[in-house]
Amino acid sequence: MTTGKNGNTLISESELRDLGKRAFQSLGLSDKDVKDVVDILVIADLFGLSTHGFSRIESYGARLKVGGINPRPNITIDQVAPAMIKVDGDNGVGPVVGMRTLEAAMEAASQFGIAVAFARGSNHFGPISPYSLIAADQGFASIIGSNATTTIAPWGGSDARLGNSPLGFGVPNPGGKHFLLDMAMSVVARAKIRNAFKRGEQIPDTWGTDAKGNPTTDPKTALDGFLLPIGGHKGYGLALMVDLFAGLLSNAGYLTHIQSWQDEPDEPQNLGHFFILIDTKRLGSSQWLSERMIDFANILMDSPPADSDKPVIVPGMIELAKLEQQRKAGIEISTETLQLLKQYADT
Amino acid sequence: MTTGKNGNTLISESELRDLGKRAFQSLGLSDKDVKDVVDILVIADLFGLSTHGFSRIESYGARLKVGGINPRPNITIDQVAPAMIKVDGDNGVGPVVGMRTLEAAMEAASQFGIAVAFARGSNHFGPISPYSLIAADQGFASIIGSNATTTIAPWGGSDARLGNSPLGFGVPNPGGKHFLLDMAMSVVARAKIRNAFKRGEQIPDTWGTDAKGNPTTDPKTALDGFLLPIGGHKGYGLALMVDLFAGLLSNAGYLTHIQSWQDEPDEPQNLGHFFILIDTKRLGSSQWLSERMIDFANILMDSPPADSDKPVIVPGMIELAKLEQQRKAGIEISTETLQLLKQYADT
Repeated sequence: MTTGKNGNTLISESELRDLGKRAFQSLGLSDKDVKDVVDILVIADLFGLSTHGFSRIESYGARLKVGGINPRPNITIDQVAPAMIKVDGDNGVGPVVGMRTLEAAMEAASQFGIAVAFARGSNHFGPISPYSLIAADQGFASIIGSNATTTIAPWGGSDARLGNSPLGFGVPNPGGKHFLLDMAMSVVARAKIRNAFKRGEQIPDTWGTDAKGNPTTDPKTALDGFLLPIGGHKGYGLALMVDLFAGLLSNAGYLTHIQSWQDEPDEPQNLGHFFILIDTKRLGSSQWLSERMIDFANILMDSPPADSDKPVIVPGMIELAKLEQQRKAGIEISTETLQLLKQYADT
Repeated sequence: MTTGKNGNTLISESELRDLGKRAFQSLGLSDKDVKDVVDILVIADLFGLSTHGFSRIESYGARLKVGGINPRPNITIDQVAPAMIKVDGDNGVGPVVGMRTLEAAMEAASQFGIAVAFARGSNHFGPISPYSLIAADQGFASIIGSNATTTIAPWGGSDARLGNSPLGFGVPNPGGKHFLLDMAMSVVARAKIRNAFKRGEQIPDTWGTDAKGNPTTDPKTALDGFLLPIGGHKGYGLALMVDLFAGLLSNAGYLTHIQSWQDEPDEPQNLGHFFILIDTKRLGSSQWLSERMIDFANILMDSPPADSDKPVIVPGMIELAKLEQQRKAGIEISTETLQLLKQYADT
């Protein structure tokens, strides 16, 4: 371990894996489940998505301690149609339920070309892009979504009734760079509004509303209000659709039925996810796919940059480059997260 | 027929169907194919989506006349895996290829729970919501997308390299109101910029860029430039993902490989579409689904409106209300469109 930027620490992937493994073992998870959680959170941190990586040990750990998350879930997998699976996560740790659901969907998709797995009884499952990466590495294109605690008002409404639900897509490039998109439906994350407030800056009126649902340029007012979705009614519609697929169709909670883990850490959230997996190997050879994927990326990146300092980017490019770099140079982890991991690991 | 608002004409659904049928018969389509085109375009006009309804007879007709679209396609349907279908549209009229692809996907989804059908060799297939409606009426949830002629620059780029590709979602409410979302990835349609220009108004700098990719508030400059995607890099990423699924995976054209029907009306476009259909009847009873769908809509619509004149809306509500109203009162069609339909019908 060495000290990195911003007072963070650089830690090798194997050290982080070992520390994470011991921490979640000590929190009562089975060895198989520990492996799943560590796999997802390590990829999240390798991608540089530190808000969705091992920093989550804080809430996962606290909720496991107070019985809000079940450390030893009896996850059931029910094949309701040949290519359709319903998973009940029994309130397990999110990435455990997520990985079990992903695996079931990939297995069925390799038989039928496509499959969908719906999960209920779950919790925060990390970012989506690690699942998309695992799927893409095995030749699967994916559409994955989860619902979330309510932070967004209905379009035209005045109180939080839907979550900033993330939606992710992955398309594999065999042997090359996959395209991975992982996005929530708000224009910006709440953290960006908080940073503007700390710096004493105004915010664009497209970022958030006051507590009554009216757009505001004052960050403090926006922090007391709601996040605004991208493209107004379009992002609102997308967030709803993600919740319909992830929450309503999965038989999980949805909208205001989702418990807030912050307000009620000891209650099950009953979050839902959906995983649609498509086996691209049935569509053509890996050479056919790889050639098209490289051509696709080249067409985009050959567009002359509007600002010569900012080259054109494609979805997943930054995360995959960060993963490669941090596998070599070490993963940047906040000191607080490391301390908490060690504290659990040494319990 | 009676004269409606804005110099438009009100025509009954059956009259419009008959007129459309005779027009497309005269353009050389088979009876089965005529039915498909009319079904989609009638629903589009019933929904009030007049830019994507029978007004398209102008481009469809012109291109059929010059051989840019094949009036008698030999559409092939290839089941490459149990729940995965590849369709080659043989450059047929878009809604013909779209309907054949939708039908193949629904049939496989009813067997396997989910299915995907990819179409290549297609053309503009109308709006997405009519397909989502047909699917929802039979109990299928859907995710449908198409690629399109390039009008958007890559994020950070300076020339048009990707289409304003539409993406649609549908979730059925058996016996009630479905949720239908049909959106393109630009903040606004080009027509909205054109209207601002006609009125001599400035536009927000989030709508479009100049010809070099820099945001502009001048509508004339924006009309010479590119549309901006919703949420900046997020909408850009979504538009790319739609093209990867609809164009790249389907073995159709994609990005700049798509021919512009305006610049080269006599050339095949090789557009691609994807249809993912999920049979909700495998997930639970129609009563279970209907109760959850009604509860979901009520939670949203019970949010007190931020502006008391503007009630909260949910996706598809406006279109489904318009359909109901126009089925009774007649469908509003522009005089130009009616004249063109009659001209073809009486040829």
